[in-house]
Formats: sequence, C-alpha cells, structure tokens
Amino acid sequence: MSASPYREFHLIEELLQQLPHHRRQGGILKTGAGDDAAALHTLHSPVVTTDTQREGVHFQRAWLTGRQLGQKAAMVCLSDLAASYATPQALFINLCLPENTDQPYLLDLYRGFGDALETYGGVLAGGNISSSRENDLAIDLFAIGEGYAPMPLRSNARPGELLCSSGYLGLARAGLHALMHGHHAPASLLEAFRAPRARFDAAPILHTAEVTTLMDISDGLQGDSEKIASASGVSIELHIAQEHLHPDLREYATQHHLDPIAMIAGGGEDYELLFTCSEQQLKSIRTKLPTVQVVGRILPRGAQPVTGAAGASFVHGVDWKP
Amino acid sequence: MSASPYREFHLIEELLQQLPHHRRQGGILKTGAGDDAAALHTLHSPVVTTDTQREGVHFQRAWLTGRQLGQKAAMVCLSDLAASYATPQALFINLCLPENTDQPYLLDLYRGFGDALETYGGVLAGGNISSSRENDLAIDLFAIGEGYAPMPLRSNARPGELLCSSGYLGLARAGLHALMHGHHAPASLLEAFRAPRARFDAAPILHTAEVTTLMDISDGLQGDSEKIASASGVSIELHIAQEHLHPDLREYATQHHLDPIAMIAGGGEDYELLFTCSEQQLKSIRTKLPTVQVVGRILPRGAQPVTGAAGASFVHGVDWKP
Repeated sequence: MSASPYREFHLIEELLQQLPHHRRQGGILKTGAGDDAAALHTLHSPVVTTDTQREGVHFQRAWLTGRQLGQKAAMVCLSDLAASYATPQALFINLCLPENTDQPYLLDLYRGFGDALETYGGVLAGGNISSSRENDLAIDLFAIGEGYAPMPLRSNARPGELLCSSGYLGLARAGLHALMHGHHAPASLLEAFRAPRARFDAAPILHTAEVTTLMDISDGLQGDSEKIASASGVSIELHIAQEHLHPDLREYATQHHLDPIAMIAGGGEDYELLFTCSEQQLKSIRTKLPTVQVVGRILPRGAQPVTGAAGASFVHGVDWKP
Repeated sequence: MSASPYREFHLIEELLQQLPHHRRQGGILKTGAGDDAAALHTLHSPVVTTDTQREGVHFQRAWLTGRQLGQKAAMVCLSDLAASYATPQALFINLCLPENTDQPYLLDLYRGFGDALETYGGVLAGGNISSSRENDLAIDLFAIGEGYAPMPLRSNARPGELLCSSGYLGLARAGLHALMHGHHAPASLLEAFRAPRARFDAAPILHTAEVTTLMDISDGLQGDSEKIASASGVSIELHIAQEHLHPDLREYATQHHLDPIAMIAGGGEDYELLFTCSEQQLKSIRTKLPTVQVVGRILPRGAQPVTGAAGASFVHGVDWKP
C-alpha cells in the first residue's frame, strides 16, 4: 500500500499545461475546476467507449516517443467514436506509472494527448494517476462522444453486400514488424504503426451513403470481419488481391520474405473503417472517398464465418459491450 | 505483443451471466448488443468519474474474495457519484488480467460488480479485457451518472462553517491494519475495509440542507480536508475527540498500541461523506442523519491548510479533473 510518488498537485498542473487551454476546459465540461467527478453539459446521444494501452502488450516504449504514444493512445480510443457516428466531447485518462517513469516523458505523453484532442476535438475532462510496483506503463482511456446519427451495428450485414475498407491495410503490421526486428522500413509503414489516424473524415460520408455496418479495424481484417460475420449471422469471403497492397508494404514483404496478404488479414491497428454496403452505395461513396477498397463479400451463413484469407489473428484484448 | 488467452467470446458471455439481466441491458443503454462503443439515452446532466483499483497498490487478493473485490471496486467508483449529487447510470470496467487469474475468480469478480449495481443502480455498459505479462490484477472503472442537482464544489467552504462527516471514520484503516498484520479484529472493522458502502442515502439529505461543499472520504480525513482547504482558500482545524471513536476502533487501537486519532486523520477508504455547513444547517441534517459527526471547523486561511491532527497521509493515487 505504497504512497504515490506522484501525489504532488503541481505535477498534474504541469501535465495539464501541456494541453492547449481549450482542451483542458470549456466545450462539454460544465465545471472547469474539478471535484470528485466531472460535470458535463447535456448529451443528447451519448456514445461511450474505452480502451487500454499497456506496455509490453500493446507497445514498447522504445518504439515510440512519449508524445507519439500519447497521441496514438488517445486516437485509438477516439477512433471507436468515428466508427460510431459520434464526435469526441470528453476524454478521461487513467495512468498507472511505474517508478521508472520520468517527468519529461510524462509531459511528452500529455503533449501527445493534446495533439489528438487538437486533431479530433473534445476536452480532457479528468482521470486518475496511480503508482505501480511493476515496470509496465498502463494507459486506460474513456471517451464520450455526441452521436450525430444512430450507431451502425455490426449485426446489419446481409448476403450480397460488399465488405470494404476506407483505405490500405497491413501497413501498421509491417511497421510493427520493422520495429520489432530492427529493420529499416519506409516512413509510410512506421508512421502507420506510430501515428495512425482515426477516420473522422470518412465516417460522415459512409453515414450519408447509409452503409449497413461499420467498425474500425483494430484487430486485423480477418478478426474484425469475424465480428461482423458472427453478429450478422452471415459468412464473409475475403478477397485480398495485388491491387490491395500498398507499394511500400509489397516491397517490405518481398524484402523480408513475408506474406503481405497474411499481414493484411492478421495485422491490426490500421484504424481504417470497415463497412458493408451495396454495389450502388459503393459507387456513390467512391466519388467522395476514392481510397475505398473492396476486400470481400457477404455470403449466407456457411461452415466458416470468414474464408479466403490465411493469417494469424493479432489481437490485444477483448472489447465487449453487453 | 502476446495474444490474449481470454479472447474467447464465451468467457465474456459467461462473465456477463453473473450479473442480473437488467444490469446488463436496459436502463440508460440504448443499444443492448454491442459494437465499437455503447450508445446511451440522453443524459441531461452527465456526471462522470473514474477510478483504478490495482493489486499491490490498493488491495491484496488474499484480503478479499473476488466477489468482495468486485463489489468494492465498483462501489469506490460509484461513491464519487453519490458525492456529486448524481445517480449511477452506466459503469464501464477495464480489466488487465495476469495469466494466473483463474476463471472462477473472474466470475466471482463479476458477481461483485453485479452486487454493487444491484445496490446502487446503473447497468454494466461495456469495458475492455486485456492480458498482462505482470502479476498484478488491475481494474479501471468509469462511471456515468445523471445529476439531480448542481455538483457541490470543493471550493465553497467559508470561515465559520463546520466540517462534518456522515459517520464514523478510521474503521477501514483499522480493518486494513488487521489484514496486513494478520490480527484478529471485529467484523465492523474488517467489513469497513472489505465492503464499505457509498452514501447514496445521505447525499440527498445533504442536498436538501444545501451544504456548501461535499466529497467522499477516500484518502483520509486529513488529506481530504486539505483538498477542501486548498480549493476554498481557507484553513481547516480538525477536532477529533473520544466521542468520534467507534467503540471497536478504540478497542482495537488500545489492544495494538495504535493512535486511533491518527487512524482517522490518515486512514482512507471509509467512503463516508465529508461536507461543510452552518450550525443551523447541521441541526436540520441531524434530524434525518443522526450519525453525523462534527470533525472540524473552517477558519480564514492561515499558515497551514489543515491543523489539529497528526497522522500520515494514506493516499493511493491522485484523482484530478482539469
């Protein structure tokens, strides 16, 4: 039952100073000064999501700067709001700090949280910092958004529809591979792992087109397709062809004798949007979102939920809602 | 980057089965089946709080059953809503599971979450389960309530007012002492540590009486008084007298040569409500809440924020809101 070395109030003050003023107060936050809880303004269609980033499970500190980690951790959580037709309002961040965490690193981490809020919107509305007797830094995030349309459910996919991604996949997996093995890799791959972007730009286009299902790709095309197949009671046939490969992914895979298809199927963390729609809907979407790729099609339920691609699943955890 | 051993969807299904049906769906939850996020019904005055319970920092598994731990972890988070004039609506729980966590323990933990929701209200609306390469179980909780009155701020205390607690203090500290040292102790002390209760019963009475500040006592009387003193720009003189000692605390302290005053001042986790009010307000409160104790008075700002009691602070972490 150790006392926290981070008790000092001025540390928190200093951490918050790393964020732009309007990301520390204002917006949805009713009470700027804090108490046991944060009081928010009315939320008409609250959308809530949570995520964990844990050293040794989701990242190694050597792979990213503190600022990159902060930006990515916040982005990962906010990405679920993009996929739920919601705009970010409030972010809450709990940190478990090992004793070897130095203050400059922490300040950098908060600058990263600030970067994500600056990019995607919302304010930092609270959190909790506790010390840890272990060596792993853990970041738990909770985000609240305001929905601008009913949340598209995973259970709406129907046979005959197409499975699409909002952009190239597998880049983050290749970037991670390079970091894990100390390989040289093009910036496009390393950035895909270190600084992926939530597709808040693409989501409203998919909403206007009335796509039937929508989620972000965090666990890899195969794993996430399985979730849609399972929720919708359908099977999904994946088609990953040469045209789906980003040139840098193709080159990296060739160089290191890797299967790029397996990296797309099994690799997570691209945070592109995965959705189902009709051929006709796709046509209209492509006029506004030319990066869309068709990566599969929906079939009646068969023996396997997902067919057509190999590749080990690359999950970190289990997201669930009752 | 290990794959989670808890990936299986049926585990989550089984965990949720430990909760009463109406605590898994319904209530504030708009979408019963889950996706990337949880969609909630309109919240007019959302009040949000978060808390972390971490093995080795906040608890040892040997001190409580899984069910007691689950109940307490959820209660600790919900208690902040009680102190903020809000009623629980939705609870989100993130777990970091070490590999040595067995399934019966997990099921028991969820029964405990269910117990707390059954007692205080709200539904389990989501969460995240990830594996850990370390040995410590970590529980991150996030609770959303609907405010029934403006949140009483810590900055409202004024000289001349009284500092009061909704009930006896120091019992949880004595219970923890007994568990840490393997001493025999009366159930009242052990229960105060293992199964404290959030004072949702007392909060509306304090609201009706229009107390000026309100918070729950999680870090001990001294530490929490310091927060009020600092936020309000006042000093607080604590008065802890013999009449404030629960008979079981007095006896335990005598038996083990401990200072019961220091246990009250420094011991946290009683989760009684701490508030400030006038003499006249106190009279009216006491007719409905006879357990109230006057534990100090508010003075103009002096050299020390809090005077009148010794006792080491016993904090776990730092709660903050920008």
